[in-house]
Amino acid sequence: MTRKALQDQWLEWGRQCFGCGRENEHGLQIKSYWEGDETVATWQPKPYHVAFPGALCGGVIATLIDCHATNTANAAAYRAEGREIGTDPPIGYVTGSLSVKFLKPTPIDKPVTLRARVKEIKGRKIIVSCSLYSGDTKCATGEITAIKVR
Amino acid sequence: MTRKALQDQWLEWGRQCFGCGRENEHGLQIKSYWEGDETVATWQPKPYHVAFPGALCGGVIATLIDCHATNTANAAAYRAEGREIGTDPPIGYVTGSLSVKFLKPTPIDKPVTLRARVKEIKGRKIIVSCSLYSGDTKCATGEITAIKVR
Repeated sequence: MTRKALQDQWLEWGRQCFGCGRENEHGLQIKSYWEGDETVATWQPKPYHVAFPGALCGGVIATLIDCHATNTANAAAYRAEGREIGTDPPIGYVTGSLSVKFLKPTPIDKPVTLRARVKEIKGRKIIVSCSLYSGDTKCATGEITAIKVR
Repeated sequence: MTRKALQDQWLEWGRQCFGCGRENEHGLQIKSYWEGDETVATWQPKPYHVAFPGALCGGVIATLIDCHATNTANAAAYRAEGREIGTDPPIGYVTGSLSVKFLKPTPIDKPVTLRARVKEIKGRKIIVSCSLYSGDTKCATGEITAIKVR
């Protein structure tokens, strides 16, 4: 099991993504890793990612969930074929839909942890569920449907 | 009908919000206005709001929809009471849940327009639907449930 982040294994596509691109200096630059059948990312908000005083912005939470989960879908597709990410032929998934439930305010002064897993693979679609934690507290849950584009 | 943006009528709460706070210099700073029963916001992406080349990041789209729709819910609550935004007693809504469907890639080099309207008000919840356009093309649709917090 490699410890290189999923986002550091893609070749060109997505390396500038605002949510997860490794080369976007204005972006969130999340790093996601496999841990067994789950993917995990830990990320430290900056003070300007605030919603109201003390709480992480819901749109930033949606961005974290979207990018972590879509990276999970893409990585799972390679894994299902027994291949390393980035090997030919390339596989690409984009988000078709996203839903997020905000369970409680997420503190902005501590790191958040995202945990995702594949719920279902059917045809060109992969459904991924994801939860966001602050410490041991689950603050948000989400689900995406990722769609294969090539 | 005032032409002051909804986000410029709130007093303290939310003025630093990453999505819509007027004082967040790193944020998206969207400005939403009533047009009859709809609210409308036009916003110009920056190049670093990209997902993959040429396309606006899905998480940024989710942030735009969330903040535009939640501002709509809050403004609608004041309007339902026949009051100006910011008058006492203050009304505050936060997002309880958010869903977004990405219909097609959203060009990053043109402004996007958000259009939202209240779908339902029941008890402490307001459901708002929102669409995002690039020119005349509908690129994403979303819905939020906003919950009254005070």
